[in-house]
Amino acid sequence: MSEISRFAVPALDELPTDLAERIAEVADKSGFVPNIFLALAWRPAEWRAFFAYHDALMDKDSTALSKADRELIVVVTSAANDCLYCVVAHGAIVRIRARDPLLADQVAVDWRKAPLTEAQRVMLEVALLLAVDPVAVGNEHFAALAAAGFSQDDIWDIGSIVALFALSNRLAHWAAVPPNDEFYLLGRERARSRACDGLPRE
Amino acid sequence: MSEISRFAVPALDELPTDLAERIAEVADKSGFVPNIFLALAWRPAEWRAFFAYHDALMDKDSTALSKADRELIVVVTSAANDCLYCVVAHGAIVRIRARDPLLADQVAVDWRKAPLTEAQRVMLEVALLLAVDPVAVGNEHFAALAAAGFSQDDIWDIGSIVALFALSNRLAHWAAVPPNDEFYLLGRERARSRACDGLPRE
Amino acid sequence: MSEISRFAVPALDELPTDLAERIAEVADKSGFVPNIFLALAWRPAEWRAFFAYHDALMDKDSTALSKADRELIVVVTSAANDCLYCVVAHGAIVRIRARDPLLADQVAVDWRKAPLTEAQRVMLEVALLLAVDPVAVGNEHFAALAAAGFSQDDIWDIGSIVALFALSNRLAHWAAVPPNDEFYLLGRERARSRACDGLPRE
Amino acid sequence: MSEISRFAVPALDELPTDLAERIAEVADKSGFVPNIFLALAWRPAEWRAFFAYHDALMDKDSTALSKADRELIVVVTSAANDCLYCVVAHGAIVRIRARDPLLADQVAVDWRKAPLTEAQRVMLEVALLLAVDPVAVGNEHFAALAAAGFSQDDIWDIGSIVALFALSNRLAHWAAVPPNDEFYLLGRERARSRACDGLPRE
Amino acid sequence: MSEISRFAVPALDELPTDLAERIAEVADKSGFVPNIFLALAWRPAEWRAFFAYHDALMDKDSTALSKADRELIVVVTSAANDCLYCVVAHGAIVRIRARDPLLADQVAVDWRKAPLTEAQRVMLEVALLLAVDPVAVGNEHFAALAAAGFSQDDIWDIGSIVALFALSNRLAHWAAVPPNDEFYLLGRERARSRACDGLPRE
Amino acid sequence: MSEISRFAVPALDELPTDLAERIAEVADKSGFVPNIFLALAWRPAEWRAFFAYHDALMDKDSTALSKADRELIVVVTSAANDCLYCVVAHGAIVRIRARDPLLADQVAVDWRKAPLTEAQRVMLEVALLLAVDPVAVGNEHFAALAAAGFSQDDIWDIGSIVALFALSNRLAHWAAVPPNDEFYLLGRERARSRACDGLPRE
Repeated sequence: MSEISRFAVPALDELPTDLAERIAEVADKSGFVPNIFLALAWRPAEWRAFFAYHDALMDKDSTALSKADRELIVVVTSAANDCLYCVVAHGAIVRIRARDPLLADQVAVDWRKAPLTEAQRVMLEVALLLAVDPVAVGNEHFAALAAAGFSQDDIWDIGSIVALFALSNRLAHWAAVPPNDEFYLLGRERARSRACDGLPRE
Repeated sequence: MSEISRFAVPALDELPTDLAERIAEVADKSGFVPNIFLALAWRPAEWRAFFAYHDALMDKDSTALSKADRELIVVVTSAANDCLYCVVAHGAIVRIRARDPLLADQVAVDWRKAPLTEAQRVMLEVALLLAVDPVAVGNEHFAALAAAGFSQDDIWDIGSIVALFALSNRLAHWAAVPPNDEFYLLGRERARSRACDGLPRE
Repeated sequence: MSEISRFAVPALDELPTDLAERIAEVADKSGFVPNIFLALAWRPAEWRAFFAYHDALMDKDSTALSKADRELIVVVTSAANDCLYCVVAHGAIVRIRARDPLLADQVAVDWRKAPLTEAQRVMLEVALLLAVDPVAVGNEHFAALAAAGFSQDDIWDIGSIVALFALSNRLAHWAAVPPNDEFYLLGRERARSRACDGLPRE
Repeated sequence: MSEISRFAVPALDELPTDLAERIAEVADKSGFVPNIFLALAWRPAEWRAFFAYHDALMDKDSTALSKADRELIVVVTSAANDCLYCVVAHGAIVRIRARDPLLADQVAVDWRKAPLTEAQRVMLEVALLLAVDPVAVGNEHFAALAAAGFSQDDIWDIGSIVALFALSNRLAHWAAVPPNDEFYLLGRERARSRACDGLPRE
Repeated sequence: MSEISRFAVPALDELPTDLAERIAEVADKSGFVPNIFLALAWRPAEWRAFFAYHDALMDKDSTALSKADRELIVVVTSAANDCLYCVVAHGAIVRIRARDPLLADQVAVDWRKAPLTEAQRVMLEVALLLAVDPVAVGNEHFAALAAAGFSQDDIWDIGSIVALFALSNRLAHWAAVPPNDEFYLLGRERARSRACDGLPRE
Repeated sequence: MSEISRFAVPALDELPTDLAERIAEVADKSGFVPNIFLALAWRPAEWRAFFAYHDALMDKDSTALSKADRELIVVVTSAANDCLYCVVAHGAIVRIRARDPLLADQVAVDWRKAPLTEAQRVMLEVALLLAVDPVAVGNEHFAALAAAGFSQDDIWDIGSIVALFALSNRLAHWAAVPPNDEFYLLGRERARSRACDGLPRE
């Protein structure tokens, strides 16, 4: 178990019921238990706070700020923080939610040249600024977000997602939590059908 | 109310009961309501997650990692993020918890020359690294923390406090939440008795 | 005496007459001798040059550039250089000269969100640029200063104050000169009357 | 054709014979023409110099510096330069040459926590330094490389690969050359068999 | 011979014929063999690629982009990379090609205050950005170059020169190749006649 | 006269006597009036303080810290601040004082590979740190300087020279003071006799 954290990782059957149930539900849906669910589990109170915060911001969408957009913010700011767990795990979710097998890698390395809407560009530019130089965020950035069509609720969410993953990236670095192997390939299938048929298998 | 956030701030009597009760308790103890309690309140689920996380990490101590030490981590990393709210509010708590009227300002500006124990120095150096360059944290830093006397639980707490205030600093910048005026002077009294008696009042 | 410098600190009665007289005058007015007066005193020629330069720039004001404004430049650029002596000592002077108990801490941590005039904002933005990235200062910054109402004399003073404290910050770091304890509380009294009456003493 | 460069892209049948032959050979082997071959083709002399340089450094191996190691250097330094083309295209080659479907993504985001040999770690640390802060490379780094088992020839190759991709990354940014879609999925198959069987197709 | 490289330097009579001939030609023209010709010579294939690339970009001019302009790009970006060889050797060429004994030193230290045309300023600003932060180059920079009068061919050349010297600077740092003593004084003669007649010799 | 400053430059016959006399003396010795003497002259009090400070630190030497060493500190730290005036003017003085026509250019671009003594290396490394990241200077750097043979007086001088030119560099940038043309060629003569005899004049 030490392969997924620098700290203690409890066995599944030692977990408090609420943690165990949520983890079982995730495993059921994904086919595996994402490592972060186990790496935080030795601290149930923090675990509960973390996932409550996460769910409040990520399991929602609005006209201007879809679930895929939220994941794009995670991938771009986590790449700026060199956080492998979040880049790979949320990159997989971007592929699935945006139904695009390439976009996650594109924004992780160079979001400025990626095929994005203008609103997504404004969103990512301001999000990245908050992630890496938060004092530089000023009223002009809020004006730009509003002009791009984001509501006050959306704008709050954008900033809060950046903030939550500022936390999350640092936890993953601190505990050295790797992404599950499964995440690397998830959602790449459309690329496969387009690009790889006929290529020789290794 | 707009003076304490770029976003909506609910009236006290519009708050869910659990928020209202916690806020009343804090006001009772401090004599005022710290602005962050109100600035996050329009999002009760996030409010609850934030303070649950906060309490799990800050309202505890251990032999090697006192409550004052935890606040030092907050002040030093928040200063690196130029977060006025956290530097001033948690600076006040440092003054009170460490019973030292000068230490908070000293570490906020230049922790390396501040009067700290060697263990505190190691703690702050690694904490700051996680705050500003998280990918650079390596096994050697964990070895240094252990050598300085911190337990695995303490080390987890150090990193998690940094992570939580990486979030908190960004929320405060995003919403432009100022510290309450009261925080600026809290805990400076011992300095006063030492230094200022006999100085002319303005 | 070694507590106020890494280098030799002469006794007051060993000082050249002109240094001794100026120091006595300052002590008389403030109630204490600021450490920098003693830390530089083992080099009387440099001491004289430093304070002559200081007086030529700081003991003056103009319509557009008050004494308090000059001190704001010192606090903001010294904070960028992490210089505890200058942030705390000149922070105290800001509090007294601007008759504002909060402004010094506000600009030291995040001048962009501080309650300043538009002219002060332009002044601090350009001053900070000269402090941290001097080659980036261009004609457009001089145009902005002039447009904000600063005369050629004012503009010279702004740049020269930045330059003098670029020197001063480095001397204070080099010799490890701490601010006197007295500076930390000076000028915070109005905050006290506003905020702290009725608060329990520690 | 404008989709693969900001500059002119000649048709395949307009190319000089030597370029056309090499491109046909690559297409034959890979199943597609990597975009960089076309994006540079409007300047045949530079095209020839670029690929001659590339082949001299990349199409070789030694006991200590395998072809996969050479590609790792490309991925890590190109990631530091945010070069999507090189990260994705050479990431694919890493997956194939190292027979590891995960390693390329791991080193692109956080090589320090990736499963590498100690020699690879020294190699990547020095390579990255040359890529981002070349003046900081000193004799101590050459000593470290030699101590890790690299010959003089290997060490020259390490530095030259970094140098060549410092050029290549800048060309790809300048012309805005995207990686071919095919590269994204190449070499991920082993992960697939391990991780994805049984996962629902999108 | 070890004085001009960290790696092996072949004797002139051991070189392949094509290298020997080119080197003889350069020596004939300049009066000395620039060290870079020898430092790369132990790798003839790379030597050939490097000088072929160099000649394709540097031995040409256009209405908007003269040979002197090309050398200015080299000096400014090499100064940003702290590469002594390129700053000194190409500084000499700037002096000769621009017939200006001062311009090379001026742009090496602070190109923004140097006496340049507006087109040169745009050229150097974008070139420097590509050199130090390549991901930040965007469509707006290409628009600015076009507006300044540069053709598509010129723009390609500007970026490619930056890219080639990103390689060259790193090779020179890696091998620790010093400029020949001769370069330091080349082309300073006009300054001499203007400024130094009548000055006492040392 | 506006060519040497963004601010007013008084005529020589309008200067206070002490300034005029010093300037006449310098002109007599050098054959020209260095621009900085004129650019500061509209503020006689600051002029006097500046040159008094300068003379106290630069017109002296000791066994371990020669006049040439002092100038090396100026060149290296001024290069880090991109200050053309100081790099060129004090580069000339280095050439003359160190009787070396190449050393100034070498240290300005890459002091780490320059032919220096070990004591000079320590001196420049710590000086540069104080110039660009003053808070990072710690007791270990003072120990290194002492171990390299510098006395307390020397160490004070090293830091004070850095501090004075932190000021000087910013003044020169602020007023946009160019070096006199004469400085560029001063002291290059030995190189000339070695390297340039027989080279064709332009």
